[in-house]
Amino acid sequence: MATNQEHVKLLGATGSPFVCRVQIALKLKGIEYEFLEENLATKSELLLKYNPVHKKVPVFVHNDKPISESLVILEYIDEVWKQNPILPTDPHQRALARFWSKFIDDKIVSASSKSVFTLDEKEREKNVEETTEALQFLQNELKGNIWIPLVQDIIGLQLFTAEKFPKLYNWSQEFLDHPVVKETIPPREPLFAFFKGRYESLLAASK
Amino acid sequence: MATNQEHVKLLGATGSPFVCRVQIALKLKGIEYEFLEENLATKSELLLKYNPVHKKVPVFVHNDKPISESLVILEYIDEVWKQNPILPTDPHQRALARFWSKFIDDKIVSASSKSVFTLDEKEREKNVEETTEALQFLQNELKGNIWIPLVQDIIGLQLFTAEKFPKLYNWSQEFLDHPVVKETIPPREPLFAFFKGRYESLLAASK
Repeated sequence: MATNQEHVKLLGATGSPFVCRVQIALKLKGIEYEFLEENLATKSELLLKYNPVHKKVPVFVHNDKPISESLVILEYIDEVWKQNPILPTDPHQRALARFWSKFIDDKIVSASSKSVFTLDEKEREKNVEETTEALQFLQNELKGNIWIPLVQDIIGLQLFTAEKFPKLYNWSQEFLDHPVVKETIPPREPLFAFFKGRYESLLAASK
Repeated sequence: MATNQEHVKLLGATGSPFVCRVQIALKLKGIEYEFLEENLATKSELLLKYNPVHKKVPVFVHNDKPISESLVILEYIDEVWKQNPILPTDPHQRALARFWSKFIDDKIVSASSKSVFTLDEKEREKNVEETTEALQFLQNELKGNIWIPLVQDIIGLQLFTAEKFPKLYNWSQEFLDHPVVKETIPPREPLFAFFKGRYESLLAASK
């Protein structure tokens, strides 16, 4: 149970959809927290201490106890702060939500990221195919991933469009229009610059 | 909540540690169920209907509602049948359990399986290294994976031994000695034959 004496910190990096997920949950629950911006090129002592296994953000720290892995953090937040539940109440609906969250992380985030951050055209093609197939499953379930439209713009890929995935596209627009989401996700321009930079260093490194 | 009119089925395949996980949970909770053995070479209509996304076992079916992904199934079972809880009660302890379960699946199951089921020595070496590093983290957390001793015997790999990982090894022996686990996991010999067969088909296919 959450008490009145809360000390909540989030180690994160602007531009990470995994961090943003946690920020949306915190905002939704009305939890105040301290945001510690990590520089992922150097990685702070605190990050290495709190997440020695993966050395990645987000790390959520509640009364000095660290938790890593964004979906694990979301479950924790939902269990400790009961207001505005994230997961549905019905156990089968909860199972479906967990199944699709895992699906998005395992099948879409990874493949769509690989389809952008590669210079190998064959690998890109393979990952575009995998992403498209995965999005098709998701389209039937009406969920979405808001980072995809952004990263595909970087290299002019057309993975996720209103034409190809109308229901999914509408869902993602509604998601982006939600006041909590609107307030929380970083504005498009710096995010675009950030990912564009990552892609360009990849290009430069190959020359 | 579980009612008196339960209809519980499990689509599985003997030899799959992911299926066995669910069987151990069901046994622990004292839940009666019907086991439907799948032939993974052909895959039944039922499997394709219940898990069209991954087409994999285990699929847990409760009153005609299917759930896939073994960890998602475990959470569901623990939520619906409250007796003999699987996850701890404390939210931070629950988060740690979820973190390490994900770690085992992402880092150990995949790498240890790749270190066995490959004919490429370089890839094997890389995966042995990754598994060893992951086991080292786990050793510090005192958890284990009982399938590793078995699969490593198939090709004579020494990934997981009492010498290298004493605490982890002891933990896994205690786990295997638990009466529920003892009753549930398949006997070593057929399991060994099954994995040995998989490895030998891989060898044969390469000639």
